[in-house]
Amino acid sequence: MTDEPGYVSDRNAILKRLARIEGQVRGVKGMVDDNAYCVDVLTQLGAIQKALDGVGLKLLADHTDHCVRGAVERGGAEADEKVDELLAAVERFARTR
Amino acid sequence: MTDEPGYVSDRNAILKRLARIEGQVRGVKGMVDDNAYCVDVLTQLGAIQKALDGVGLKLLADHTDHCVRGAVERGGAEADEKVDELLAAVERFARTR
Amino acid sequence: MTDEPGYVSDRNAILKRLARIEGQVRGVKGMVDDNAYCVDVLTQLGAIQKALDGVGLKLLADHTDHCVRGAVERGGAEADEKVDELLAAVERFARTR
Amino acid sequence: MTDEPGYVSDRNAILKRLARIEGQVRGVKGMVDDNAYCVDVLTQLGAIQKALDGVGLKLLADHTDHCVRGAVERGGAEADEKVDELLAAVERFARTR
Repeated sequence: MTDEPGYVSDRNAILKRLARIEGQVRGVKGMVDDNAYCVDVLTQLGAIQKALDGVGLKLLADHTDHCVRGAVERGGAEADEKVDELLAAVERFARTR
Repeated sequence: MTDEPGYVSDRNAILKRLARIEGQVRGVKGMVDDNAYCVDVLTQLGAIQKALDGVGLKLLADHTDHCVRGAVERGGAEADEKVDELLAAVERFARTR
Repeated sequence: MTDEPGYVSDRNAILKRLARIEGQVRGVKGMVDDNAYCVDVLTQLGAIQKALDGVGLKLLADHTDHCVRGAVERGGAEADEKVDELLAAVERFARTR
Repeated sequence: MTDEPGYVSDRNAILKRLARIEGQVRGVKGMVDDNAYCVDVLTQLGAIQKALDGVGLKLLADHTDHCVRGAVERGGAEADEKVDELLAAVERFARTR
């Protein structure tokens, strides 16, 4: 089916990583609730950012390897569109991390 | 009490922001579960990174304005220590975002 | 000729941007030499980082649009290689900015 | 003299680092002029970003350790101002890298 996203074969691994990140955010809430030391909270936030980066890069890789690659192989206007969209996503990804 | 963290007066606002971030992560899990388009998932991850950045900067500001400032006003070895620790935290913060 | 880099048609624009960045770095040297205020020097360094980011994104775009796309169109092992290499470059780019 | 910037005792080391960065930018111009491979140019740009980061962190450290610390020790409105200015600089620094 052509509507499957690029990450379909990695979906379970990605869901597991996101569940872990959700738990990390909950853990930081607990730290703040317990008046944990500012620098320790910051260190935990850094760990979450790194974990989110990892998920983002995985998605970017899957997207490039499946969606973009498939569109380029088929050629035509869709290929141009997908390459432009990928570059915009890379730029956004680089800016938010 | 001297053991209160720098963010103590902002604690409720920070907890609210973290709860919102936790909800955003849960939302991304739902998107992946529904086979959402890769680029849309990436955009949401970017929004979460930005929200985490905001919390990190708030904590850094509170920490500088209370803990570091207090230590510098009191002077001595603790002041040196707090300034060094702040700079290490700034460096880590800049690297993980 | 197949050995032309992806940025070949943008080369003059890229060289102009790099010459401007070189001038900005020279300008910061002058500021430091004149004992300029720390925060003003930092602001200038930020402007240089942003300009370098712009050149990096342009190169990444040209590379994807020409080299990677061409390899994917031709298919085979070279396509796999180029896609992997692109993803590694995106990751490095995101980490250093 | 109170007008000396925080980096005054590190000025020569900072100037040397900036001169090195200027040379690195010149080197990248040469690479582009020679039609070097896109990914190799990107790698070099990454090295320059990292070197600029290092200079920025050094300036931020010197600024905090001298200007901000001195203002906090003296107290009053100048202290508030310097702490606010530092936090704004940290935020900008984190955003441009």
